[in-house]
Amino acid sequence: MIGKLNHVAIAVNDLDAAVALYRDTLGATVSEAVEQPDHGVITVFVELPNTKIELLYPLGDNSPIQGFLNKNASGGIHHLCYEVEDIHAAKDKLVADGMRILGSGEPRIGAHGKPILFLHPKDFCGTLVELEEV
Amino acid sequence: MIGKLNHVAIAVNDLDAAVALYRDTLGATVSEAVEQPDHGVITVFVELPNTKIELLYPLGDNSPIQGFLNKNASGGIHHLCYEVEDIHAAKDKLVADGMRILGSGEPRIGAHGKPILFLHPKDFCGTLVELEEV
Repeated sequence: MIGKLNHVAIAVNDLDAAVALYRDTLGATVSEAVEQPDHGVITVFVELPNTKIELLYPLGDNSPIQGFLNKNASGGIHHLCYEVEDIHAAKDKLVADGMRILGSGEPRIGAHGKPILFLHPKDFCGTLVELEEV
Repeated sequence: MIGKLNHVAIAVNDLDAAVALYRDTLGATVSEAVEQPDHGVITVFVELPNTKIELLYPLGDNSPIQGFLNKNASGGIHHLCYEVEDIHAAKDKLVADGMRILGSGEPRIGAHGKPILFLHPKDFCGTLVELEEV
């Protein structure tokens, strides 16, 4: 079912410092920052040859990553995103296997404009997993 | 400096369950389990089209991941591994930029037989980073 690792998302407490770290110290190609008001985050992508690192910084008063950052003062890995061909088929298989889908349980449109689901970390080795239809 | 994301390592408390999850529920190709007595872990690789997930399970009484699992009962993402062409050049650049290298500060041979370094999570957005020379 799962295909490529689309990205690894890292929540950061200082976006400028994180960009400088990845661009200047680690020598990677880093995108411009993009505000995602519908998702409560600012995103920056670190472009690696085979996948991406998504740096996430809170935007607004109800950012979904603020709680994570309150618990992880240095920041940390927030989620992994795997690609799937058919998000509805993926959902049906996961539900049949007893896995918990976060939120309404139905796919919604994510920060990249594609249908996504988030899966419960306790069902996935303590890892928050996003599935994105590509 | 950094190239591909070589792998994402996930520490797990139940290796059989993690293998079944990635193989049967998520439909990925999963390697055999390999004991790494010199490194205190059993490793299983989930082969994705563009990178790998490394499942880590403790081996022996002094496994370097036991403390992490004690703090994270469901398991969790343990580290990210980026590829570099020259581990000594990478080390020199990181030290010049004030980054902390774990252990002796010198490259050692990792679980895949290649020279590696681990970098301090507090210097890297709360993320334990491994560099591997390829």
